Amino acid sequence: MTVRSEPAQHAGMRASNLALVLGEVARTGPVSRARVAARTGLTKSSVSGLVADLISAGLIGESGPAATERGRPATALSLAPGGTAGLGLEINVDYLAAVVTDLTDAPRYHHVVRRDNRDREVDEVVADLVEVARTAAGSAAAQGLPLAGACVAVPGLAVDGTVIRTPNLRWPRVDLADAVGEATGLDVELENEANLAALGEMWFGGHEHEGGPLRDFVHVSGEIGIGGGIVVGGEVFRGAHAGAGELGHVVVAPDGPRCACGGHGCLERMAGQQEILSRAQVATMADLTRACEAGDRAALDAVTDAGRHLGVALASVLTLLDPAAIVLGGAFATLAPWLATATEASIARHTGATAPPPLLVSGLGSDAAVRGAAGTVVRRVIDDPAAYLARRP
Amino acid sequence: MTVRSEPAQHAGMRASNLALVLGEVARTGPVSRARVAARTGLTKSSVSGLVADLISAGLIGESGPAATERGRPATALSLAPGGTAGLGLEINVDYLAAVVTDLTDAPRYHHVVRRDNRDREVDEVVADLVEVARTAAGSAAAQGLPLAGACVAVPGLAVDGTVIRTPNLRWPRVDLADAVGEATGLDVELENEANLAALGEMWFGGHEHEGGPLRDFVHVSGEIGIGGGIVVGGEVFRGAHAGAGELGHVVVAPDGPRCACGGHGCLERMAGQQEILSRAQVATMADLTRACEAGDRAALDAVTDAGRHLGVALASVLTLLDPAAIVLGGAFATLAPWLATATEASIARHTGATAPPPLLVSGLGSDAAVRGAAGTVVRRVIDDPAAYLARRP
Repeated sequence: MTVRSEPAQHAGMRASNLALVLGEVARTGPVSRARVAARTGLTKSSVSGLVADLISAGLIGESGPAATERGRPATALSLAPGGTAGLGLEINVDYLAAVVTDLTDAPRYHHVVRRDNRDREVDEVVADLVEVARTAAGSAAAQGLPLAGACVAVPGLAVDGTVIRTPNLRWPRVDLADAVGEATGLDVELENEANLAALGEMWFGGHEHEGGPLRDFVHVSGEIGIGGGIVVGGEVFRGAHAGAGELGHVVVAPDGPRCACGGHGCLERMAGQQEILSRAQVATMADLTRACEAGDRAALDAVTDAGRHLGVALASVLTLLDPAAIVLGGAFATLAPWLATATEASIARHTGATAPPPLLVSGLGSDAAVRGAAGTVVRRVIDDPAAYLARRP
Repeated sequence: MTVRSEPAQHAGMRASNLALVLGEVARTGPVSRARVAARTGLTKSSVSGLVADLISAGLIGESGPAATERGRPATALSLAPGGTAGLGLEINVDYLAAVVTDLTDAPRYHHVVRRDNRDREVDEVVADLVEVARTAAGSAAAQGLPLAGACVAVPGLAVDGTVIRTPNLRWPRVDLADAVGEATGLDVELENEANLAALGEMWFGGHEHEGGPLRDFVHVSGEIGIGGGIVVGGEVFRGAHAGAGELGHVVVAPDGPRCACGGHGCLERMAGQQEILSRAQVATMADLTRACEAGDRAALDAVTDAGRHLGVALASVLTLLDPAAIVLGGAFATLAPWLATATEASIARHTGATAPPPLLVSGLGSDAAVRGAAGTVVRRVIDDPAAYLARRP
C-alpha cells in the first residue's frame, strides 16, 4: 500500500458509503439517521456527514419528527421527490414516447406520439425524438426537476450509444445517443426496448414471488415486433453479444414461412401484430380488441392461434431457462383475455408440466419500456450518488 | 466492529488468503513465493506462512531452484499432484462410470461399466454404483491419493443430495448422496450430468474464444437422452428451480408425437438415440456409426434428419441465449461427421444469421460429465482450501 493511493482509496470509500446510506434511505425511508447507522454499520457521525452531503445535493429530504427512536423524536429521512429525475425515451415502430420520473419513481411527465415510423426517413424520426426529448426536458425544468440523464429504448440492438440493428425499422447505424445528447445536454444511453420493458415490469409491475419482488422471469413484449427480456437475479441477461432474449425469433413452425429476420417460422412471423391483424381482417389493434369483444370469429381465431404459437415458444423458454414466471406485456397483455388460455394450453401440451410457472399479465401496457428507461437513469443515481454529485453543475 | 467478531474475521481473512495463494499457484505455477506475493498483494512473510500450511496439507509442492527471480535462484511452487484428488461418478441410462483426477486434473483412475439401467431395480443400480465408487476409492488409496470428496452425475434433476427426477430411468426419489457417502466415507454431492458435461468441456475440452478459454457457451450432451448445459461467464446457469438447460425438451416439431416428458415434438423425441437407431434400423450406436461409414442410406437419412431437428432447437437457443459457441458432445460428437452439416444448414435456415457462433465438436466423448464431476471436487479444494484443511482427518 503506497501513500499515493490513499486519497483514491478515501474517495472510493466515501463513494461506497454515500451509496450505502442513500440505498438504505431508498429501501426503508422514512428512516432516522440512527437507524441508518445501525443498519449500515457506519458510525452516527459518518452517517450525519454523508446525509448532509446528500441533503445539500437534493437527493434526500427531511420530514418532521414523525418517526421516534426509543421515545426521542427524530427527523425522518426520505428520497427527495424533487431532487433529481430520469428522462426515459422510446423509439418504437409505431410511436415515440417520453417519460420523466423522479427519485421516488413517481411519473412527472408522460407523452406519446403515435405515428408509423417504418416508411419515414431516419433523420426525420430522430429529429422528432429530439423534439420529444426537448419538450420533456423543458417540462422537467419548469417543475424545477434537474435531470440526471436520459435512456432511450430502441427496438433492436444498440451498442455504445449507436443503434446497430432494428429488424422492423431497418435503419442503418445511427449515433442516436450523440444526437439526443447534443440536443438536451444530457448523458444519454441506449438500450434494447425489450430489456427495458422487462426492467420496467420488475420495478413497477408489482409482481411478487415467494413473498418478495419477482426477480427471475421472462418478459414478453409484443408491439409491432415481438421481443423478450430475460431477468436473472434482478439483472437483464444479455448473452455473449448483447443479443439474448430475442423471443420473437424462436422457431415455432419449422416448416413455416420466411421471417423478416431471414429465418423461417419465427414466433414474430407467425404471431406478430401484422399476422394477427391480417388474419383477423382488421386494420388496427383497437379494431382487433373491439372485434374480440364483439365475439367476431375471425378475430378470435387469429388471436387464439397467435396464443398457441406463443405457447410453443414459451414452452421452449421454460425448458431452457426455468424462470419463476412469465410476464405477458405490450400487445399480448391487451389481448390476454382472448389469448392466455390458448397459450397456457399450448405450454401444457409442449412441456407436459402439471404446474408450470405462472403466466402473469402486465398492467403497464406499452409504457413498460419507456418507464424502464427512466427508472434506469434514476437507479444509476441511487446506486452511485458520488458519480452524480461529481457530474452536477 | 466488536471485539467478539475479531477471531471470526481473522479466520475469514486467513481462509480467503489461503484461497488467493493456492489460486495463484494453480493458475501460474511453477511460480516463486516472491511472485505470488507480488501478484496477490500479500506480504512475503504472509505468503511464506500460508505456503507452509498448504505444503504441509499436501496441496502445494516445491521443485528445485529452476525459476529465478532477479538472478537469485528461488524454489518454485506448483500444485502437488499427489496432494488430494476428486472422485467423479456417473449414473447414466446405459452405463456407470468413475474417474479419479488429482489436483492437476490428471486422470488417475477411469472405469466404465456398460449396462442398460432402464429395466433394473433402483437398489441394484445404486448398489452397483456404490461398488464402482468403492473400487475407485480403493485405487486412489493404493496410489496414496487422499480423496477430497465425490460428485455424482445423474441423468436428471437432483436437489440437496436427493435424485428428484430422471426422465429416462423413471426412478422414484433416491437419497443417492447418503448411499454413496455411507459406503465411501466421503462428502458426496449430486449434479445433473448435462451441467457437469458442460463444465467438463470448459475445463478439459481445450476450446478457445477470443484468445481465452471459452466461458459462455451451450453444451449439447446426447446419450440416450439429450441434455444441455448453459455456461455463462464460466458458471452453470441453473434457472429458478435448477431445471434450466433442458435442451432435449425444446419443441422442434409442434405437431409432433408425444415425448416421455409428457410434451409433444421435443428434440429428444425427434432426434434422440432411440429415434435415430429405429429409423436407421440398427441396434446400437456402434452399428449406426459403421452403417454411416459404409454410406448406408437409411442410416445417413436418420442422422441427417436428427441433425436438422437439432438445428431447429439450436436456432432457438442462439436466439434466446446468444452464446459465444455451441459445443456438440456425447453421441452428437460421435455422429458429427454425418450430422453437423445438416445442423448448420438448419441453424442458418432458422436464424437467417450469416455468421452464427461456431458449432464446435467435443473431443471428450461420453467422459465429459464424469470428468466434470471429478473436476468439480478438485475445484472446491482450490477455491476454498481452508474448508478442505478443516475437514481433513
